[in-house]
Parts: sequence; C-alpha cells; structure tokens
Amino acid sequence: MQQKYAAWGRVKSCIRELTAYGSARKAEIGADKVFDFSIGSPSAPVPAEVWEAMREALKRPDVHEKTPPEGLPALREAVARDLSRRYALDFSAQEIQIVTGAAGGLAVCLNALLSPGSEAVVLAPFFPEYRVFIEGAGGTAAVVPARADMQPELDALREAVGEKTRLVIVNTPNNPTGAILSEESLRGIAEILREASERWGRPVYLISDEPYRELCFDRESIPCVMTAYENTLLCYSFSKSLSLPGERVGYLAVNPALENRDEVLASLRRAAAALGYSAAPSLMQHALVGCVGMTADVSVYRENRDLLYAMLTELGFRCVYPEGAFYLFLKSPVEDAKAFSEAAKKQELLLVPSDDFGVGGYLRLAYCVPTETIRRSRRAFEALAKEFGLGEGDGAC
Amino acid sequence: MQQKYAAWGRVKSCIRELTAYGSARKAEIGADKVFDFSIGSPSAPVPAEVWEAMREALKRPDVHEKTPPEGLPALREAVARDLSRRYALDFSAQEIQIVTGAAGGLAVCLNALLSPGSEAVVLAPFFPEYRVFIEGAGGTAAVVPARADMQPELDALREAVGEKTRLVIVNTPNNPTGAILSEESLRGIAEILREASERWGRPVYLISDEPYRELCFDRESIPCVMTAYENTLLCYSFSKSLSLPGERVGYLAVNPALENRDEVLASLRRAAAALGYSAAPSLMQHALVGCVGMTADVSVYRENRDLLYAMLTELGFRCVYPEGAFYLFLKSPVEDAKAFSEAAKKQELLLVPSDDFGVGGYLRLAYCVPTETIRRSRRAFEALAKEFGLGEGDGAC
Repeated sequence: MQQKYAAWGRVKSCIRELTAYGSARKAEIGADKVFDFSIGSPSAPVPAEVWEAMREALKRPDVHEKTPPEGLPALREAVARDLSRRYALDFSAQEIQIVTGAAGGLAVCLNALLSPGSEAVVLAPFFPEYRVFIEGAGGTAAVVPARADMQPELDALREAVGEKTRLVIVNTPNNPTGAILSEESLRGIAEILREASERWGRPVYLISDEPYRELCFDRESIPCVMTAYENTLLCYSFSKSLSLPGERVGYLAVNPALENRDEVLASLRRAAAALGYSAAPSLMQHALVGCVGMTADVSVYRENRDLLYAMLTELGFRCVYPEGAFYLFLKSPVEDAKAFSEAAKKQELLLVPSDDFGVGGYLRLAYCVPTETIRRSRRAFEALAKEFGLGEGDGAC
Repeated sequence: MQQKYAAWGRVKSCIRELTAYGSARKAEIGADKVFDFSIGSPSAPVPAEVWEAMREALKRPDVHEKTPPEGLPALREAVARDLSRRYALDFSAQEIQIVTGAAGGLAVCLNALLSPGSEAVVLAPFFPEYRVFIEGAGGTAAVVPARADMQPELDALREAVGEKTRLVIVNTPNNPTGAILSEESLRGIAEILREASERWGRPVYLISDEPYRELCFDRESIPCVMTAYENTLLCYSFSKSLSLPGERVGYLAVNPALENRDEVLASLRRAAAALGYSAAPSLMQHALVGCVGMTADVSVYRENRDLLYAMLTELGFRCVYPEGAFYLFLKSPVEDAKAFSEAAKKQELLLVPSDDFGVGGYLRLAYCVPTETIRRSRRAFEALAKEFGLGEGDGAC
C-alpha cells in the first residue's frame, strides 16, 4: 500500500468527520437545531437553461459516445470564445482541455508540470488537496504565509521561489478565507515570477485555481491572473458557478502566449491519460456547450455573507472580510482553533478548524446554507461569544 | 515535464493515428468505401430503460449534488446485490467503490496497491494503458507471454510471480484478442497465486479487468475470476454493457473474503482522492441505480463475430477464435504486422498492429461496426489475401 496516502486520509477526515457528526446530530435533535457550516457545497439553484440544455442533450443519439480525451470540440470552442471575450486575449480551442472538475484539472496540471525533486509553491491558507497532488506527482510543496488580510507575504514568496520551483499555485477567490487576490498582490507575484524565470532561464508557471471566479461580491470581477502574468494556466470548474458539483466538468486553459505552450499542452494531455482520466462525462459536455459564461443566481451568497459578517463582528468575533467564494474565515479567540471548534460544537455550531489549510488559529465557515440558518444561529454564536468573553466592538480584522 | 509520459504519448498515438487517418480518408473517398476496424466503441443501442432512467433522474432536484467519493449509496447497494446474485458471494455496499469508468478504476486500483519498487504481472497481449498506470504508480510491469490460443503460459506466470510481485492483472474477455480465460487457466492462476502468497507471507492480489463481461457469445457467462481466487479485485465499467462509453461510470468490487480487506478498501479510497477523482458524475449514478445488471442487446456483436470469423478464415487468414468482447485477433501472414497493416490500408482496411499490446505479429480488428460494413469489406480482404498468397483452408489458429 502506498504510504504517501496515509497522511491524506487523516487530513481529509477532519472535515468529513465534522460533516458526519453533523448528519448524526441532525438526526438526533432535528436538522433545524444544528448550524452546519462545515461543507462548501453550492446552494444556489441550477439555472433553468442548464436543466433545459440537459433535456435537449438527452435527445441526441450520440450523446453517450466517447468524446476526444481533450473534450468535445464544440465545448472547447465555446470556452475559448468566452475566455477571449473575458480577458481580451486570443484563445483557440487548442488552448482548452476539458477536465473532470477542479480536483481532476489540478491533478492533471500538477502531474504534467512537476517531476520528482521539483517544487511547487503554495500560498497559505490553501486547500489540503494541493499538497496531496503535488506529492503524488513526486514534487514537494513550499508554503508561503499570508498577511493578516490574507494577501500573500510577497517577500516570503520571493525567497521561496528557488532553483527547484516549477510553479506557484494561487486560489482566488480563496477557499478557506473568501479573500480575493488584489491587483497589488498580483503585480507583485508576476514581478517575482518574471525575475525568477529570467534567473533560472526557464518559465516558472503560475496555476490559478478559480472555481469561485463568479462568486465576487463587491466588484464587477476578480483581478485577472491570466492577464497579469503570461505563463499562467487556469483551472476552472462549472461546479460552483452553475451549482453542478456532482457532475465533474471543468477546464484547463493555457495562456496563448505561454512559454513552451505546445510542449505544456502535450504534457497536460499525457498526464490526463496517465492518471486514467479518459474525458469528462459526455452528456454534461454536450449540455454545457450553450451554457458557458452563464452563472446561477448567486446573490444568496452575498446576502449570506453580509448577514453573517455583520452578525459575527457585532458579537465581537474577529473575521477576515470575505470578498468572494462562500467562506468566512473567523479568528479563533483562543490559540487552539480545534478547541474552539469543540466548544462551538457544544452550541451546535459546526466550524472547521483551519489547521488542515496550512494555517493555525482560524475557523472556516461555509455559508452556502439557507439564509434562515444564519439568522437562527445568532443565539448559538451569542452564547459562544459570551463563553469566550467577547464583547461588542471587538470584531473585524 | 514528466519524462515518463513521453513513451505513453507514442503508444497511444498508433491507434489514434489510424483512426484519424480513417476519418480523413472517409471524408476523401466516402465513408462507405473505408472499412474502419480501428476503434473499440460500442455500436449496440443504449437500452430504452436507460434513456428513461436518465430523464427520470433529471427530475430529482438533488441530482447534481456531489455524491460521496465512494459513490451514491443506492448505486453501491444495487451493485452489491447484483454481484451477490451473480457470484453467490455475500457482497455489501462497503466492498463496492463507484469509479469513473474502466480506466479510472484501474488507475485507482494500481495506485492503491503498488508502491515504488513493486511489480505487477500482466498477461500478453494486454491493453497498453496497463503499463502506463503501473509505471505511473511507481511500479514495474513484468509480461507473461500467451500460448497460440491466447490462454496464458502458466509456467511463465509461475516464474514471473516473485518476491516483488504485488498483483497480477487479467482481462477477460480480452482486448485485443477476444479470448476468454478458461476454467483451466483460472484454476492454474489461482494455484500459482496461492502458492506465491504462502511463500511471501502476504497476499498476491488478482485484478480482473472485465468491462466486456457481458459480451460472451458461446456460453451463459465467462468463467468467474472472483470465485476462482479470493484475493480478487474486480474492475467493471458500464461503457460496453450499456453502450455508455462517454459517461464514465464503473465500479471496483473487492472480494468480501479479501485478505486485508479494510486496509485495501481504505487505500482504494485514498488513491482515488490523491489522483483527483472526486466521484463519478452524479446524474449518471442516479440513473444507473435501477439499471445495474441490465445489458444492451449485444446480439449484433455475435452476428458480426460469426460473419467476420467465417469470412476471414474462408479467405485463408489465420484468426484466434473470438469468444467474447468485440475484437478479432488476426495472425499477420508476414512477420511485420505494421507492414501488413500498411498493405491493408491500401485496400481501405484499417487494422491495428498488435505491437502496442505487448505482442508482435497480429492485427486487432474491432468489429463493433455496422454488420453491413463487414459484408462490404469482403472484396478488400479478398484482394489482401491474394496479395499475400493466402488460399482457402489456410485459416483458423
């Protein structure tokens, strides 16, 4: 048995255990009595157009036939058109590879670009799967800490990008913090990676993991990673924007100006085959051709964000202001976030301690829950604030 | 870039090149003039019940929600019931993991069981992906040759199973030969693996890759690997039996009596997560709950087999008698099967040389084509037989 998977089993089980506990507890005392903020699964309804597109796709006699491994040509073209418009760059279908969701896309990317002995830099806090995929590809992960506002420490990044660094991963909007990479951070990252590429005489790639791209509440769109740095690969999934987390369809897009573009594209395809990814499900690919660029009505997440952030800060909790995604990062009032999570559990509040995300002392709240759940959770948070001696006005980070 | 993927790129491209050549040639001279036996994609229609199950699944509001990584509980239970009935063993849902098709399932299996330095034994001829997945998992492949009737050389297997051997892979009915592992071969394999397990003090596992299980023409069912040897893991896909190759749903099943069963199950789940497989597409999982054990009308493959085998042997070609799947293995009348494939191309016959399957001197014909195509190909095969000086009565292996 592969020993490297043992650690992964432990990491993942922390979120899963909390969710399983939540299910059992709901069965025990009633679903309305448990405030489950443990799981990041979209709650916005699937757009009517997407349902209709699926029913239409089911009328095609060829809908279950195998698509080419890199994806249905019509879907790749639709994605290329959408990205060209979005970023004012000239994408063709060639630069697009359809993948089985965000996790599949990342695994393919990291296996294509890393080789044994090479290094990938991740910015804390980060999704625990990053480390698993990096180590699975034979690489090692170097972690760069975040500032208090959850933007990356650029000086630490500059130091971390060394001779073995093959790539840097960013995630914007971020899971678990809800922070969006600022223009300033992006400029800094691009400058550091250009310098490093120059120094080592080969491109240091940037992988931008953007499944939450459309969940951006206070501005038109998130600052664009793809145009900030030309050697960027974009990982995207339709899971969050169209509320289709079970269907496993996403894409990888490579900047048309990427250095060694053709070699990288070939390597992405080989990595997908070697990992056993034949292609994303064909029915869903057919259905999505006409839905690229569409977004579910995600206003509920903004409403939840406003409500939850106001409530928690009012009660004296310190929170990172969440600009996007559907996560809120709450500072633990005591050093040990796990102990605080246990205390919250006693109030029927399920909050994920941040340790698994590569940073201690915080809790992740997934607020993709019915708005009513947030309202009804107030009393439990009040009791928790009282228990930890928090007062009004202590809030905000 | 990972060097290990370079070889894989070459192997795969041989079948793909022939298929691409076929598409171009069809566009050039007309689809009815090209006899394309290059691709193993099911041609039997998807059963009406499966179409209906998909339309029904689309009515569930929760159909696009993420399923547990090991699969939808109802589907795992349906598979467990089907296998319990099929094999007279007592499967529970726990022993079933839903995977993204046959390739995904195999990749998960091999990554779960192999570790760097360990060995997997494959029986020639074999699907080229086996080697890629084995090497991707850090292992090495040892190849055991086949006898002329395409049953394994048991003495060679006995010698190949050594101290480093972690598992053996069998594929029945076989791609590319259409052969079915005989009871006798199975008994021999089981005996060898039991001896080896005893000798090394740990189980040597058997992986049975059975996506063509239902395509078995001359008997009720294929001799059962799962009951012949208790330390068996079964890889299955709904792609062939239900003609759903694009939808990527299959399962792994572990013998309830498997040694270290719980450890193996945990390792399978971790390997799936580490490779980036979140779960199979949810809509398809919901739809398949009521379709487990169902088979498309596959009588067309039998009809094609009878017609093609009779025709080729009559013309003097030597062929392995194909008992199942939809492949026929034709002995090249000259040593160099690639040269013969080129000669066949001149007659508009697209036949895949066997070299990529780990054995030289044969051609694979995928006869999942319209029956009419086989009839119309007679004249081209006649011309080819004549060119190579074959006469009536030379046929059969």
